[in-house]
Amino acid sequence: MLAIGIDIGGMSIKIGFVNERGEITHRFRMAVLKGVSQGQIMKELGDLVNAEIEDAGLHYSDFIGVGVGCPGSINTLTGRCDFSPNLDWHDLDIVGMLSSSIGLPVRIANDANAAMLGEAMFGAGKDFKNLVLLTLGTGVGGGVYIDGKLFEGNEGKGGEVGHTIIRLGGRQCSCGLRGCFETYASASALIADTKKAMKKNKDSKMWDYVHGNIDTVNGATAFECAKLGDQTAMEVVENYEMWLTYGIVNFCNIFRPDAVILGGGISGQKEYLTRPIEEKLAELHYGFPMTPKVRILVSKLGNDAGILGAASLAFEKVQNQ
Amino acid sequence: MLAIGIDIGGMSIKIGFVNERGEITHRFRMAVLKGVSQGQIMKELGDLVNAEIEDAGLHYSDFIGVGVGCPGSINTLTGRCDFSPNLDWHDLDIVGMLSSSIGLPVRIANDANAAMLGEAMFGAGKDFKNLVLLTLGTGVGGGVYIDGKLFEGNEGKGGEVGHTIIRLGGRQCSCGLRGCFETYASASALIADTKKAMKKNKDSKMWDYVHGNIDTVNGATAFECAKLGDQTAMEVVENYEMWLTYGIVNFCNIFRPDAVILGGGISGQKEYLTRPIEEKLAELHYGFPMTPKVRILVSKLGNDAGILGAASLAFEKVQNQ
Repeated sequence: MLAIGIDIGGMSIKIGFVNERGEITHRFRMAVLKGVSQGQIMKELGDLVNAEIEDAGLHYSDFIGVGVGCPGSINTLTGRCDFSPNLDWHDLDIVGMLSSSIGLPVRIANDANAAMLGEAMFGAGKDFKNLVLLTLGTGVGGGVYIDGKLFEGNEGKGGEVGHTIIRLGGRQCSCGLRGCFETYASASALIADTKKAMKKNKDSKMWDYVHGNIDTVNGATAFECAKLGDQTAMEVVENYEMWLTYGIVNFCNIFRPDAVILGGGISGQKEYLTRPIEEKLAELHYGFPMTPKVRILVSKLGNDAGILGAASLAFEKVQNQ
Repeated sequence: MLAIGIDIGGMSIKIGFVNERGEITHRFRMAVLKGVSQGQIMKELGDLVNAEIEDAGLHYSDFIGVGVGCPGSINTLTGRCDFSPNLDWHDLDIVGMLSSSIGLPVRIANDANAAMLGEAMFGAGKDFKNLVLLTLGTGVGGGVYIDGKLFEGNEGKGGEVGHTIIRLGGRQCSCGLRGCFETYASASALIADTKKAMKKNKDSKMWDYVHGNIDTVNGATAFECAKLGDQTAMEVVENYEMWLTYGIVNFCNIFRPDAVILGGGISGQKEYLTRPIEEKLAELHYGFPMTPKVRILVSKLGNDAGILGAASLAFEKVQNQ
C-alpha cells in the first residue's frame, strides 16, 4: 500500500507517494503563489493529486490515505488549519476539502509533529517507542512520541517544545515571552552567539573561516573552527551545547524518552554534537542513575522529512484503527 | 468491586478499601519503624492486608486488585522500588512480594503519579481527559494524564514536573541543578519569599499576623495578609503566582491540558489563587487564542489523595485490559 504525503511550506507544497518502507516512489510539487486564495490553493492541490495518481497509472485502491503536514495552529479534531501566520491561512478546512476532492481518508497535523512521527516510523527513531524530536532551525520545532504513538496534545496543539521557558526573563522570543528554549538552542541563536563572540575576539580563527565576512556565518562556523582548536569557537560550541542539554534535561524529566533526535542543519555535526550532550545529560537529569539512559541521535530523513512525516500520518491512522 | 489502595509514606503506610465511586469503605494503617528491614515491612504489610480482609468479612473475589503509591524511583515495568531516599529502600520487589502474599494483581506507581490518576478518576479532574497535577508542597510533585490515561513516562519514571528548569542558573534545587520549577513554585519557596519580604519590610501587616514570630510563617501568611491589603504581602503573592503561571505555560505548550489541578496546602486559597493564574495564562501561552482554554482547578481529594490515588491504579489497570 502507498500513502500520499503532503508537506505544506511557505513557498511550495511538496507531495510524495510513499510506500510502507518509507520510500518515495513518486514526487511532485506545487507552488504557493501570493494572492491566490486559500480555497483556490486547496482546490488546485486536490486536482493535482488526482491527475498525478492517474498519470502514474495507479488506482485509488493502491492508497491507504493522505497525510498532511501544515505549519501553524492545526486543529486535528476538526481537520482545519485555524491559523498559519506564514501562509496567512485562517480557518481553512483542509481535511474536508481534500478528502472530498481526492476521495481518500485525510489526516492532518502540525508539520513539526508530523516530522516527529516520520522519524519514529521511518527514520532515526525506528527502534524506539518513546522519543522527542528537536529540529534546530530558525526556531526549535519538534514533537513528542509516547508509547509508540505520536503525542499531539489536546486538539493536536501540543508538543511546542521550542516554546518552553528555560530562563525566565531571558532572551526575547518571537512568541512574545522571554527565555524560551528556542532563543538559546535554535540555529539562529547559535549564529547570533557566534557573531557576538567573533566581534569580541578579533583574533579568532572564525574570521579566517568566513574570509572576514561575518554575514556568511552559519550554524557550522563555530563547530568547524572548534575542531581546529580555536578557543573562541570552542566556547561558543560548549555554551550552545550547554543550553541544548538543559532543555533536553527538562524533556527527560517529563517524558523519559528512549532517545532524543536532533534535526536541522546543525545535526550534520553528528557525534561532535551528540556525544557531549549524552555525557552531560547522564550527570544532570533528575533521578539518574535510576532512570533509563537517554540516547541522543541525529535525524535521518533529511530533506524528505516533510513528505515522509506527512505520509506517516496516514499509515499511523490505519494502524491505530 | 473494591480496590485496595496502599499509600506508602515516610512514617506510616495508609491503606484503604475503595469502591468504584471513590469512597473509602474501610481504612487502616501501619507504622514504618526505623530499623525494620524493607523485606520485613513488605511481609507485615501483606499479612496486615490479609487479616483486615478477613476481619471485614470480605472475600478476595470482592477485590479487583491492589494499587500502591510509593515515593522515590519506581520502575513500573519490573514493579520494584529502585530507590526511595526517604525510606532508604533499595531494589525492593514490592509488586512481587505483595502479589504473592495477598494473591491479587498489584500495580505500583510513583506516589505523585498515583495522585494524578486519583484526581483524574475521583477528584477535580473527573470531567477531563487531559490534565496536569501540581502539588505545591516541600517541592512540587505531580503528574500528567493524557488522553484519558495516566502518563508515567518510560519505565514509569517521567512526569517529574517539579524538576523542569524554568530559570537556568537560578535558585539552587535539592536535585543538584539550579532553577527548577519547584525552587520557585513550592510552598517552601513561598514561605522563604514571605520571610525575606518581611525582613525587608518591618511595617508589613504580616508581622502582626504571625504575632511577631517569623518562624510561624506558612503558605497562607502572604495570601491572608494580601487579602487585608498589605502591600508587601500582595507583592509576594503576585510574584509567586507569576512563577507558578510561567511554569504552567510550559506544561500548556507541551500538553495543552484541559485543566491544571493545583494541590497542597496553598490550593486552599481556591479562586484567590486560581483566577489570577487563569487570566495571566490566557495572555501568555504560545498560540493563544488559537489553543484550547486551560482551566485552573484545585485538588479535591485532600488527605485521602494518597489512598484514592493508589486505589485508582488498580481500577485503571483493569479498565485498560
